[in-house]
Amino acid sequence: MKAVVNIALKNGVLDPAGKAVHHALGSLEFSNVKDVRIGKQIVIDLDESDEKKAQSDLVKMCEELLANTVIEDYEIELKK
Amino acid sequence: MKAVVNIALKNGVLDPAGKAVHHALGSLEFSNVKDVRIGKQIVIDLDESDEKKAQSDLVKMCEELLANTVIEDYEIELKK
Amino acid sequence: MKAVVNIALKNGVLDPAGKAVHHALGSLEFSNVKDVRIGKQIVIDLDESDEKKAQSDLVKMCEELLANTVIEDYEIELKK
Amino acid sequence: MKAVVNIALKNGVLDPAGKAVHHALGSLEFSNVKDVRIGKQIVIDLDESDEKKAQSDLVKMCEELLANTVIEDYEIELKK
Repeated sequence: MKAVVNIALKNGVLDPAGKAVHHALGSLEFSNVKDVRIGKQIVIDLDESDEKKAQSDLVKMCEELLANTVIEDYEIELKK
Repeated sequence: MKAVVNIALKNGVLDPAGKAVHHALGSLEFSNVKDVRIGKQIVIDLDESDEKKAQSDLVKMCEELLANTVIEDYEIELKK
Repeated sequence: MKAVVNIALKNGVLDPAGKAVHHALGSLEFSNVKDVRIGKQIVIDLDESDEKKAQSDLVKMCEELLANTVIEDYEIELKK
Repeated sequence: MKAVVNIALKNGVLDPAGKAVHHALGSLEFSNVKDVRIGKQIVIDLDESDEKKAQSDLVKMCEELLANTVIEDYEIELKK
């Protein structure tokens, strides 16, 4: 089973890397860009056939290790 | 229009951060994890109503700035 | 003139990537590791002979673009 | 004992994040910036009094986990 975990800075948390890319795209004449936010995408290969167990394991992984939940949100997507 | 650009290391390119997370999850007793790869997810807010133009701009952004296409693959998703 | 800007999460801000590396090193039998923190090191090549001007430009770069000063500290080192 | 490990992309390896920051600084009127490269700085707290052992452990950590030595160089600094 494959899981995709997307981790993004919460709204309101400054994102210097996103801001840099935004400015850079502007200077490259992509003037239609209004905002850029940069997050992480973690792809996890899971040896688990029980979808509910996979889902609950992934939540624990995010809470315990993958995300800083004070400043980041996470989103889990299971792919069968 | 919102675009999500996922950038991942190509297969075969070592991913030390992914490996670290893999080991760490193992030591936290998530023994069902077989592999972890860490990429970037860039969310771009585009002021562009022409979907084709948006798509071709995004390809250019990836090629010129967002990805290192020697070692990374990118994937573009448009959300209306 | 070369400048090295080190950007680190402030004390007290959780660092999931550092934690992952810490766990991973533990599981690889580096049991003597007590803590790991991961920051960024930005190396900037500056065409500027006036050291004071360079220093003040670098502070502005950090404040305006390079760091998220709510959660990160920065440190500037000039190399002649 | 504290160790600082600086990991940088090898010369010649494209650095899209560095390029983005370079463009962004240009568009913010820091026209004196000639190049920007972004690496990682990992600070490791080591419970080890033998400096030689610390040094050799750190080399192993870099080779086995911290760096992708195909595309990255690392540099170890011990602080007593």
